Amino acid sequence: MDAHVEDGRIVVGGDARQRFHDARGYGTPLDGNRIALAWVEAAHLLLREDIASVDGVGFETFLERGAGGVDGGDRAALCFLVYLDLRERGFYCSPAREPWVDGVDWSGAESVDFLVYPRGKGPGDGAVAYEVRVVGERESIPAAELGTGTLAIVDEESEVTYFETGRPDWDGQTTFEVTTAVDATLLSDRALCWEPPEGLHERAFYGQPLGSRDEGVDAIQLSLVETAQLVAAGALSVEGGYDAVVERGRAVEGERFDRRLQVYAALRERGVVPKTGFKFGADFRTYAAVESIDDLGHSERLVRVLPEGFGFAPRDVALDVRLAHGVRKQLVVAWPEDGGLEWVAIERLTP
Amino acid sequence: MDAHVEDGRIVVGGDARQRFHDARGYGTPLDGNRIALAWVEAAHLLLREDIASVDGVGFETFLERGAGGVDGGDRAALCFLVYLDLRERGFYCSPAREPWVDGVDWSGAESVDFLVYPRGKGPGDGAVAYEVRVVGERESIPAAELGTGTLAIVDEESEVTYFETGRPDWDGQTTFEVTTAVDATLLSDRALCWEPPEGLHERAFYGQPLGSRDEGVDAIQLSLVETAQLVAAGALSVEGGYDAVVERGRAVEGERFDRRLQVYAALRERGVVPKTGFKFGADFRTYAAVESIDDLGHSERLVRVLPEGFGFAPRDVALDVRLAHGVRKQLVVAWPEDGGLEWVAIERLTP
Repeated sequence: MDAHVEDGRIVVGGDARQRFHDARGYGTPLDGNRIALAWVEAAHLLLREDIASVDGVGFETFLERGAGGVDGGDRAALCFLVYLDLRERGFYCSPAREPWVDGVDWSGAESVDFLVYPRGKGPGDGAVAYEVRVVGERESIPAAELGTGTLAIVDEESEVTYFETGRPDWDGQTTFEVTTAVDATLLSDRALCWEPPEGLHERAFYGQPLGSRDEGVDAIQLSLVETAQLVAAGALSVEGGYDAVVERGRAVEGERFDRRLQVYAALRERGVVPKTGFKFGADFRTYAAVESIDDLGHSERLVRVLPEGFGFAPRDVALDVRLAHGVRKQLVVAWPEDGGLEWVAIERLTP
Repeated sequence: MDAHVEDGRIVVGGDARQRFHDARGYGTPLDGNRIALAWVEAAHLLLREDIASVDGVGFETFLERGAGGVDGGDRAALCFLVYLDLRERGFYCSPAREPWVDGVDWSGAESVDFLVYPRGKGPGDGAVAYEVRVVGERESIPAAELGTGTLAIVDEESEVTYFETGRPDWDGQTTFEVTTAVDATLLSDRALCWEPPEGLHERAFYGQPLGSRDEGVDAIQLSLVETAQLVAAGALSVEGGYDAVVERGRAVEGERFDRRLQVYAALRERGVVPKTGFKFGADFRTYAAVESIDDLGHSERLVRVLPEGFGFAPRDVALDVRLAHGVRKQLVVAWPEDGGLEWVAIERLTP
């Protein structure tokens, strides 16, 4: 069976409607038994030798021509590789545009490339399992475009890795009752509180003891973000006040300090306990509930703080998510926007 | 017992020599029973209340003064925290300078802060277990300064994470016999070889099949670095030759392409098989021996390619190493230098 191009569409007749459309979810119906195919659908049918050619052109040339271009930026090849992967996983899927999306309940978002139906379901059944956006390994993904949908990242070996993004809820239960302000001293890039308020560390999990407990020293060492938030809350008093802490923070880590502090304070407001994420390469690891210092449990999330307008390298998404999953935590990224904060959770997905 | 400052040194007498130096590895002997203490040693003895004061100054003020400064960059506090951590782990350790290093066999490297002796051994026994360099969480570590010794990175909660660096050997056994050049086509940001030479994928593990094997399509898809190396080796022929491949590579990933290709080619020269490290957030994952495509085993190393003159953020060292260890691989970083390549392996260490 051969297909041909007609009015800018790839058309195939014969028993195409039953064989390809009805039975296997390819294309959209035209008149009679004829259907129109998207470029990726035609490529796949050529690969499988279900059709022999498109206007006399076989799979090899069809693929080469369709992707064309000398700038290396053509998305057709990437979309084909994702379509191929989804098909091999047993899904029916369609390009996310008219007329394939007629009657389908989906977000309509412009960044979506494919609609993937639940296994065993097809285009006509109405439900969508994943709205997939195809990303090449070296494209930059603006963080602001994340939050819904599924990313399909194609690496240089044509393997496809899928990531789901969503909006996380924060449900923390840790609060700290501020009574009076206790003195603390700024020391290099941290702070020391020699006589910490009761429960500061043991119940609200601020800071770390200086030295081991049996030294008999009660001093608590605090990070600069912890210190700033506690000074703002009236729990600590340092020479030079809040401004001195912020100034020290900026001296140490530049403008990262301000956004890290903004995220830290927002998490504490929600009753969440953020601690350093250094060992995991993140800004914070977070605990939704801390009963006591002896009953810590494991942090549930890793938070990476991004600058406004940040664009992800896909490889770094892979790295961060892989690390998080390896330590059984969820990755959340956060960035300042319009005076507030945006939060997105990113997880690896095996469709 | 009190210490005092004399001629710029912190001196303590009484039975200090036996109690602190001989029994517990602090300080260096002066006349009689007197010893001189380094600042970190005095701070530790103050913390432990082994000495009560230095010129009337107690631990709190001693620590605050010693670290001083408003720029947040003072290393004394960081060094103290590492010294404290090493002592808590049960090691004797000394500042890496005269006169502590007299008679000790060590590298003499200027970047070393502490010499750590094997457990149960002390300064007088001659052997050194670790040469430790203290790094604050936000210092930049030039890659060129890695290769020997141990890093002790202090995070914002005063936890210390240790990393060992060394020079990896590459012992690969995979070769590919080039007979004649086979045609390949550049396609977007990869290449396709419709009739690959025998063994290209199955034995030398180049590329990936296009589609699943049962499609009956023999085409191999290759990354641009693989393609460039194969064209240079005379195994593949593309329109425009080697230059066209390199130009496409640079169009896709800028100057990263050249150094990635340099590393790829060097690894292949050593009989090692590099594949994409995308899923692990690295440039390559490497296999020292690949028997056949069905007996792949697990890659042993992850390679990250750096630009010349690169400086690490400690947090990214933590991230990369943590990820690598979580998937049971060793992290190696590589960068171009003087026309060749430098290689450094980095591993987490628990002293």
